[in-house]
Amino acid sequence: MRNANVSPLTTATSTALLTDRYELTMLDAALLDGTADIPCLFELFARHLPTGRRYGVVAGTGRLLEALRDFRFTDEQLAFLRDEHVVRPETIEWLADYRYDGNVFGYREGELYFDHSPLVTFETDFAHGVMLETLALSVYNYDSAVASAASRMTLAARGRPLAEMGSRRTNETAAVAGTRAAYIAGFAASSNLEAGRRWGIPTMGTAAHAWTLLHDTEEEAFRAQIEAMGTDTTLLVDTYDITKGVETAIRVAGPHLGGVRIDSGDLPSTAAAVRRQLDALGATETKITVTNDLTEYAIAALAASPVDSYGVGTSVLTGSGHATAGMVYKLTSRQNPDGSWTAVQKASAGKGHRGGRKDAARRIDARGRATAEVIAVEKTAATQPDDRPLLVPLMQRGEALHEHLGAAGTRAAREHHARVLEELPPNGRRMSSGEPAIPSLFV
Amino acid sequence: MRNANVSPLTTATSTALLTDRYELTMLDAALLDGTADIPCLFELFARHLPTGRRYGVVAGTGRLLEALRDFRFTDEQLAFLRDEHVVRPETIEWLADYRYDGNVFGYREGELYFDHSPLVTFETDFAHGVMLETLALSVYNYDSAVASAASRMTLAARGRPLAEMGSRRTNETAAVAGTRAAYIAGFAASSNLEAGRRWGIPTMGTAAHAWTLLHDTEEEAFRAQIEAMGTDTTLLVDTYDITKGVETAIRVAGPHLGGVRIDSGDLPSTAAAVRRQLDALGATETKITVTNDLTEYAIAALAASPVDSYGVGTSVLTGSGHATAGMVYKLTSRQNPDGSWTAVQKASAGKGHRGGRKDAARRIDARGRATAEVIAVEKTAATQPDDRPLLVPLMQRGEALHEHLGAAGTRAAREHHARVLEELPPNGRRMSSGEPAIPSLFV
Repeated sequence: MRNANVSPLTTATSTALLTDRYELTMLDAALLDGTADIPCLFELFARHLPTGRRYGVVAGTGRLLEALRDFRFTDEQLAFLRDEHVVRPETIEWLADYRYDGNVFGYREGELYFDHSPLVTFETDFAHGVMLETLALSVYNYDSAVASAASRMTLAARGRPLAEMGSRRTNETAAVAGTRAAYIAGFAASSNLEAGRRWGIPTMGTAAHAWTLLHDTEEEAFRAQIEAMGTDTTLLVDTYDITKGVETAIRVAGPHLGGVRIDSGDLPSTAAAVRRQLDALGATETKITVTNDLTEYAIAALAASPVDSYGVGTSVLTGSGHATAGMVYKLTSRQNPDGSWTAVQKASAGKGHRGGRKDAARRIDARGRATAEVIAVEKTAATQPDDRPLLVPLMQRGEALHEHLGAAGTRAAREHHARVLEELPPNGRRMSSGEPAIPSLFV
Repeated sequence: MRNANVSPLTTATSTALLTDRYELTMLDAALLDGTADIPCLFELFARHLPTGRRYGVVAGTGRLLEALRDFRFTDEQLAFLRDEHVVRPETIEWLADYRYDGNVFGYREGELYFDHSPLVTFETDFAHGVMLETLALSVYNYDSAVASAASRMTLAARGRPLAEMGSRRTNETAAVAGTRAAYIAGFAASSNLEAGRRWGIPTMGTAAHAWTLLHDTEEEAFRAQIEAMGTDTTLLVDTYDITKGVETAIRVAGPHLGGVRIDSGDLPSTAAAVRRQLDALGATETKITVTNDLTEYAIAALAASPVDSYGVGTSVLTGSGHATAGMVYKLTSRQNPDGSWTAVQKASAGKGHRGGRKDAARRIDARGRATAEVIAVEKTAATQPDDRPLLVPLMQRGEALHEHLGAAGTRAAREHHARVLEELPPNGRRMSSGEPAIPSLFV
């Protein structure tokens, strides 16, 4: 073992301390006053979409199910909680045996969502559910923010492939999750190697400006790159002068060069000029990739330009202006000693929520288009023939349903997203700010 | 071992695949064409501050040094790279022995920065330096975005304590890094338990609305919380009606209740009303904490209100409108066969950089206020008696300087930030959008 001091990435790391302190102090108090084992429902949802967004995309489901599996307190973590007097010694003992053994049901990963959509419900006792708030929200809020931005870019790209290249613009571990979320929302590939290893996402990338600058001339750099990667590679042509760069690229690689990448300048005019130049040089099959601070708006503006693919960095992994999905996790029901249930909710007008057990369905019209998000409290939501029920089991008695996990679950989420995006009404496909594409109806 | 299948958090996880694919394809080509061992300088910097910001705060230094230590390829990672044909078999062999053994120098963590400040320079050969671009940028771009936002909140709070409570609004692992960055920039405490365990940051938090909703009455919830946590605890009083909540809180806890927390409503008027009510009930020492979607602007607007501390969530861990610091990592110099150095730079006007080896100093006037960021190319920056040199060694021949690491390094960065914030001229302390507080002068 050359690197015995570094653990392989497959070793699970405990997620149990990725938690706000008050979750554990509430647990501590609940174990003391006898409320810890009251059966409860906790619901994860967004009160509203980020301002101006037409729809949101659920992401994080598979990651959360895996994080719940690893939500176990290690001896070292327990020692920290004991030394810091976060909870009483009796509670430390309880935590040592903690394992989530409840049910989880909710929206499939890749599904669209709207105001108040009941995305995940945790069915367990108070003690087991209260501790998951922070972790569940962290996973969903970031992953869904990225997926929601990425899906708009997928619409804007109109079938041209999108590559995610934003790892350097966000936290190094968040990047792996964000890459996965972008892939679910329609991106074709990513620069992030760990996302490739962990989730089976296709990876891509050839060279940066540093490669050209390392060499005495651009021509030397291109020759060396082609030597290593073949003529099917993509050459970055804008380190010095794009016109000369393209000319050199084709001279060195010949007319069968795979592609050129442009990372600066006014992209519509530059792309058109590069296409003309490539065609004149006989490189009619050489593709053009553009990668200069693209957003969904910049992608949409390139629809008429001769661009073959887009590389998107900052905007996708920072949620394109909405870095968090703003979801919350609320106690919505608790069981009474007689077995009946009480719906509970906070009173505040602006930050309140609806108590009670939810069901949800998407109402679909005769043309296959969504018309409403139906949210039913204490009853069944799908009441019309074309209503599509939205809740599926995610975890049963602590066991995650296998279909949501790993690379296969990620691919399934991507396929599901592509399907349900077809249901979005024309108004929902607009890039401009506006109201949610469909209303949320409580019934 | 109750949880033998979960590794303790102290086990280092390899960071080597938190990397864009093109870093490795460039390495592969460099090993082939003989440029891999050319001595180089790579520089990490921001071309400009986020739009409207007066200054930035360096964060991520200690974390990056620790991540470099763990940048070792495990057998499983190498197998992935081999199976995916990311690089040639000879390059896999080279990666198996990879360890960063170069020098790193740059700004101290907690330092202020401005346009083009040369924040980190990596002095090594091309092969060892090119691979670090993605990881170094991920760490600095997120941590510095959070620290830069947090420092503005520290200014706005004018000495009142700030608690970071935003873990749920960002990726679960990013949250731990973000908490650390906020602490460096002046926050007093955090809700995040792993940040407490890992970096020694004080943790806080008592109860959420779920605690009140779990009980039949608010009074029962308060009684149970005081039973578990003592009267010094903070009670959340806005689940139903704030006036009744405060009255119940003091009736149950007595006039020596530690604090009340308000998480909704119009905070200036609500805080004033709660203060009057508490004083009338004899609870003149009971503190008021507010936590309702605070930003630096909302904090500044509460300066005249009877608030004792602030809890900040979303805005701090998402960079308050600037989720990334937008830093880049560029090859700036390479050595020639004769031992001389060539400065290299990309030509593009909008996205260019200055080649060459940099030094930097902050020019300070007679009153101790910063007047300019002096960036010297191939010479010494500090030329006037009060110039403060900004570059310090961070890593020498692959060994990180201990003073930057761990909880002690984090505290040192926090102290350094508090000191250098005093140098900021009045114009730099303004919350409004504007120009950088001081100009960056290339000399």
